[in-house]
Amino acid sequence: MAACRELRKEHAKEFFESFDTVLFDCDGVIWDANDEIPGAKDTLRKIKEMGKRIIFITNNSTKSRTQYAKKFTELGFESVPKERIFCTSFAAAHYLKEKLKFQGKVYLIGEAGLEEELTEYGISYTGPGPDPVTGIQKEWLHIPLDPEVKAVCVGFDRRFSYFKILRAASYLNKPNVPFLGTNEDQRFPPHVGYEIVLPGTGCIINAVKTAALREPLILGKPESYLFECIQQSIKEVDQSRTLMVGDNLHTDIPFGRNCGLKTLLVLTGISTLEEARHFQASNSIHDQKKVPNFYLPSIKELGELIDKVQ
Amino acid sequence: MAACRELRKEHAKEFFESFDTVLFDCDGVIWDANDEIPGAKDTLRKIKEMGKRIIFITNNSTKSRTQYAKKFTELGFESVPKERIFCTSFAAAHYLKEKLKFQGKVYLIGEAGLEEELTEYGISYTGPGPDPVTGIQKEWLHIPLDPEVKAVCVGFDRRFSYFKILRAASYLNKPNVPFLGTNEDQRFPPHVGYEIVLPGTGCIINAVKTAALREPLILGKPESYLFECIQQSIKEVDQSRTLMVGDNLHTDIPFGRNCGLKTLLVLTGISTLEEARHFQASNSIHDQKKVPNFYLPSIKELGELIDKVQ
Repeated sequence: MAACRELRKEHAKEFFESFDTVLFDCDGVIWDANDEIPGAKDTLRKIKEMGKRIIFITNNSTKSRTQYAKKFTELGFESVPKERIFCTSFAAAHYLKEKLKFQGKVYLIGEAGLEEELTEYGISYTGPGPDPVTGIQKEWLHIPLDPEVKAVCVGFDRRFSYFKILRAASYLNKPNVPFLGTNEDQRFPPHVGYEIVLPGTGCIINAVKTAALREPLILGKPESYLFECIQQSIKEVDQSRTLMVGDNLHTDIPFGRNCGLKTLLVLTGISTLEEARHFQASNSIHDQKKVPNFYLPSIKELGELIDKVQ
Repeated sequence: MAACRELRKEHAKEFFESFDTVLFDCDGVIWDANDEIPGAKDTLRKIKEMGKRIIFITNNSTKSRTQYAKKFTELGFESVPKERIFCTSFAAAHYLKEKLKFQGKVYLIGEAGLEEELTEYGISYTGPGPDPVTGIQKEWLHIPLDPEVKAVCVGFDRRFSYFKILRAASYLNKPNVPFLGTNEDQRFPPHVGYEIVLPGTGCIINAVKTAALREPLILGKPESYLFECIQQSIKEVDQSRTLMVGDNLHTDIPFGRNCGLKTLLVLTGISTLEEARHFQASNSIHDQKKVPNFYLPSIKELGELIDKVQ
């Protein structure tokens, strides 16, 4: 059973000696939309100086690896090679090409990140952009479908609309058309002081799967495909010596548990310590997978602990 | 345990003597979008001539009672008083006014039917119409919310968009804001010869509830609120002498069972005889609720049986 202990000075030496690779979630861990989470740059620098391998792993599909690498530089982080960034837009293209040996066109509910990754892998697609409803309901039956579409891929899409559900479900009505979803996150991390809830990709996927009467294959955390991508790309990554740092008890922590990694929760994003305690007290195996080994208030305290052990 | 027998001549006399009131679902039973299901007008006329009370009951929220009454006339059916039509747009306004004694404004994901019913009950609302995304994600936090909104109601909306999920989930973040959903139908009845799947209100509600992290109160079938409305409005309706005729094993038939009605499945809409047989063979109580007492190919055969017993 996992412990959900605060990571304190007395555990720190043993803790830092237990891993060579750290997987950092991004939203809610190292940045908050477009602002650094205080202390993130400093902590990442110290971990690198300890000789640890740093990898970034995000369920967010709105950017490609190249776009994420650019974002690190723009926000003043040390530059990160795109090969160290594993996002679900990359995972979707990787899965289609490497696992499915996919031939044909993808119907895509998504944004620029997915478009770029599919293009990089030489996969053609249709769908992105606005698709508002026109005409009366009776006319919708005559909407042309693209006969070349042989797969449906659903990620975050701010232009999500009723017609996109209609098209996706119509393509998915053929049972041999694969149905991929990037991730099932319900919301983006909250912003203190604002009333607005920012819905996540899980809302979009749940709408499509309701009409499709089918479950998608999910590529993002807590499913393990992103770790499979990492191990294929960086041969030296040993799961028994890898730490997952995340803010989400429903994605990051069970992902770590599913892949046999150590887990550290930070409290600067989606999940709270109360939730972690709730799962810790539960007898359900499903809930137990959501309990991290350790927690810290934020990534800043992780850096401070490095100073204390050195 | 229900039987799922074909309604044949030998059961017909006893069958017709067992009810005074018939509740007819509309889409897939008496019409198919804008076309009469063959035999519907004739069968309805014969049932009326037998002295039975006919009531129409639909999960569809796109029209008001007045608009449905007009549709009957336009499609050449005998005129139906609006007091005999129970649609979920009516149920939503009824629930807010009669059950909740609602004061305030409703955030509405819906169409003209819901707008008309809310207006008729003197309930103000905001929301319907296009709401496309503008600006960058960081700016969305500043979207103004209407402080008068004290409830969220979600029905079918062809202009459903990401921003509507965002607004609904933001209003629902206050735990005392009621969350009503008209119905959870996954699709509209299929149209033979067309590849297009027409997604139903269930897709829209599932998207909103994923972001809201809350379950809505559902007004449509299989929930019993529509029958509560019927019994309040038409005092003589006795559940033990009422028949529900529907095409949907997930809504119409369990609604009938939940309300203690007799049930007849017709095969001109969503559900198939194979599905009914599947539920009949299941040991689950949940599945057993989906087994109708009788089935017929269509409403036409119901009319033909009337001729045979008279």
